[in-house]
Order: sequence, then C-alpha cells, then structure tokens
Amino acid sequence: MDWRVYASRVIVALDPPSGVEPIEWASRVWGSVAGFTAGFKVGWPLVLRAGAGRVSGFACKSGGLRLLDLKLADVAHVMKLVLEELVDCFDAVIAHAFIGGEGALIELRDYLEEHGAKLVLVYSMSHPGARETFDACRSVLDAVVRSVSPWGLVVPATRVEVVREVRVKHGDLVLFSPGVGAQGGEPGAAICAGADYEIVGRSIAWSDDPLSSLRSLAERGARRLAECRVDG
Amino acid sequence: MDWRVYASRVIVALDPPSGVEPIEWASRVWGSVAGFTAGFKVGWPLVLRAGAGRVSGFACKSGGLRLLDLKLADVAHVMKLVLEELVDCFDAVIAHAFIGGEGALIELRDYLEEHGAKLVLVYSMSHPGARETFDACRSVLDAVVRSVSPWGLVVPATRVEVVREVRVKHGDLVLFSPGVGAQGGEPGAAICAGADYEIVGRSIAWSDDPLSSLRSLAERGARRLAECRVDG
Repeated sequence: MDWRVYASRVIVALDPPSGVEPIEWASRVWGSVAGFTAGFKVGWPLVLRAGAGRVSGFACKSGGLRLLDLKLADVAHVMKLVLEELVDCFDAVIAHAFIGGEGALIELRDYLEEHGAKLVLVYSMSHPGARETFDACRSVLDAVVRSVSPWGLVVPATRVEVVREVRVKHGDLVLFSPGVGAQGGEPGAAICAGADYEIVGRSIAWSDDPLSSLRSLAERGARRLAECRVDG
Repeated sequence: MDWRVYASRVIVALDPPSGVEPIEWASRVWGSVAGFTAGFKVGWPLVLRAGAGRVSGFACKSGGLRLLDLKLADVAHVMKLVLEELVDCFDAVIAHAFIGGEGALIELRDYLEEHGAKLVLVYSMSHPGARETFDACRSVLDAVVRSVSPWGLVVPATRVEVVREVRVKHGDLVLFSPGVGAQGGEPGAAICAGADYEIVGRSIAWSDDPLSSLRSLAERGARRLAECRVDG
C-alpha cells in the first residue's frame, strides 16, 4: 500500500519546541506536509507563544482540517471568553467530555455551531494515568456523549481496545487518535481499530525534515493498514 | 461579625470582561480589593488577552495568594510547555484531577515543586452538568487525590454537600470553592461546609466599584459564618 494512503489520514499536532519563532515554525512544518496529510491541530503551546490573533490568522490562511485543541474543561462562560478571538477559521474545537453537558458542553456546542465550528470531545487520553480515570468512568462519559451529540471524539492510539469499543458504541462519530509516534502508538493501529484520523506530533513536527519523517512513519502505517484489511 | 472576617477568605477571579485593557483592568480591580481579600486567581481569559509574559509580570508584582487557574487537562509534556513562561510568581496551579496521575499529574506536581509552586486539583465543578460526571466518579477521583497528594482541591460552592464530604475525606488539603455570586453559590455557605477559601469572580471583578461589591457580598458572607458557628 502506498504511504500516501496512510498519510492522508494523519493530523499533525503543531506544538512548537522551545527556541523557535512559533508561527514561522508552524508555517514551515505545515507547508512541508500539508499536501499529504488531512490537517493540523494546534493547542495552548502555540496559542500561548504566538497569541490568539496570530494563531487565528495562521488558521485562516491554511487549508485542511483545522482543529483547535484547547482541551477546554471549564464552565460555559469561561470557555466562550477563551474562544472569542480564536474560534473563527477553525473547523472543530476539542473539549473534555468529563465536564458534562448542562452549563458546559451543551452551551459550548451551540456557541460553536453559531460560529461554524464543530465540537470534538476527549473520550479518553493517551497517557498511562488515563486508565485509572477515563476508562473507569466509561459509562458516565458514554452518557455525556449521547446527551451532547458532538461531531467527533478523541480516543487514544496507545490503547486501541478503547478505539475499538468506541467505534462500536458511537459508530456515527468522527474518531481522532492521538499518541502515535513519540508517545508510543504504532502508526496504523488506531485506524485499524476504527479511528478516522491519527494525530502525530513531535515525531513529524519536531523533525528537521518533517516530510521525510512523515514518509517513513507513513510507510509503517500503510503496511499496518494493508495487514488489517487482510485480517478483516 | 465584621465583613472583613469573610472578605479575608475570598479569592477574586480576575477574568476580564470584553473591551478592557486586560492588565490595566486586573491591576485596578486587584488594587482596590487586595488589602481585604486572600488573593486572586487568573486563568485563560486573562492569559490569552494579555499574553503569558505580562500575566507573569502582574503576578510577580502582586501580593496575596496567587493562583494560576488554567484547569490543565493534558499529557505531562504539553502541560509543561504551557507553564514554561507562566509558572514563576504563582503560588499554585490548578489542574483537573480527572486526567489521572501517571504521565500527567505526578509529573506536573514534581515540575511545580521544582518551580516553587503547588498543585491544586479540580475535584468537582460548579455548573449543573458536573453532577453527571464528577459526582458520579467520586471514588475514582478520590483515588487520584490519594496517589497524587496535591496541596489543595477545588470543590463547588454551588453544591456544599460535596464540600462537606471532601472536608471529611481529604481533611488535610486546602479547599477552594468557586461559584459564589454570579453562579449562584451563597457567600459563606462553602466555608461553613469546610472550605478554606471562596472564589468570587464577576460579582466583584466586573463591578464598577469592586470594593463596595466585595463589601456587600462580604456582609452576607459574614452573617452566614456567624450563623454556622452557632449551629456548630
């Protein structure tokens, strides 16, 4: 299978390393892989260093699927204050499912809709500690997903059994899997388990040559996709 | 009871309204109530509008207990990237208990310790939706609190039964209660239930005359404290 088949399912996390000019860096990284990947996500590390206005400007002039990953987890009026200068030009915004609907995610979803953006909820995370909390409270998070009806969910590439379960339970939602590469998730494994997109950060974005790092990661990902198609 | 007895247990949330110069606004509000209250908390709304460097500068020249309420809820390496330019001059940083210890809160606690700051965890929140999630997963959150050993916890002033329960279960921790005022929590009720501090935002900080708004809120709070001391 051609590496580009996998690469087109990759979303690049643009968290800048120390010591770079953040928007120049993001533009250079995105510029070098944009044609091969599905989109990018930016979060607090870029917003803090570049400022809301410049991040919004970067999103407005960039193509692809643009995710704003602030992992929002506050009451509704604070989340709206935070989004004020940022929401335009992003296609979707990531918030935590565990904050619940009323007074939080329901208002956020409606606010995003007014601004032409979609809501993506963190259903679980990629670090080891997520097992003790997110996984242990699955039925509670399922109820939030049903009552809030987001567009998509974030499910960890480091634990593909969670991806598989969520694909069955919430079949109609778009699934994003972070944790591929530096955090240990094998490229292709989450897509094989039912994810729509895999999110890759440092192993592409912090590379001296992002396109060649994407390509070598995508070659492994494409082999995996080919295998899981055969396995069924 | 003198209103100042209650006021000295108040932490003012400095989330700027639209259309103000954020640091000038924060300095003016804090300047007018600093002598009477315990401290302030700032979060994303101020950081986004003023930038990390200026918020850090504001904290460095301000007295009182200084809380950085970013409600962090990400993997360890992202939380550290976010704090890089912000952590100095804050006494404590707020993160979500829900993200779990390993790969997240344990690394964060150690990082804060190196920077002379303490960790405060969100145990529950003040909006109605928090009942479906935080409250339903209490035993999971209790286990995180025991394994991470934070300095303090955030418990909602809008549901004092949660404050009462946490005071018994985690007696040695400092308890902060947000949701007083605009969100409906009655001043004094959370302290009566065992909180150490009540966090008040808009009803003081967005007032044309913050000190007189503090005073009238604190008069109600002090009456409540007097009552609960008598009730036991």
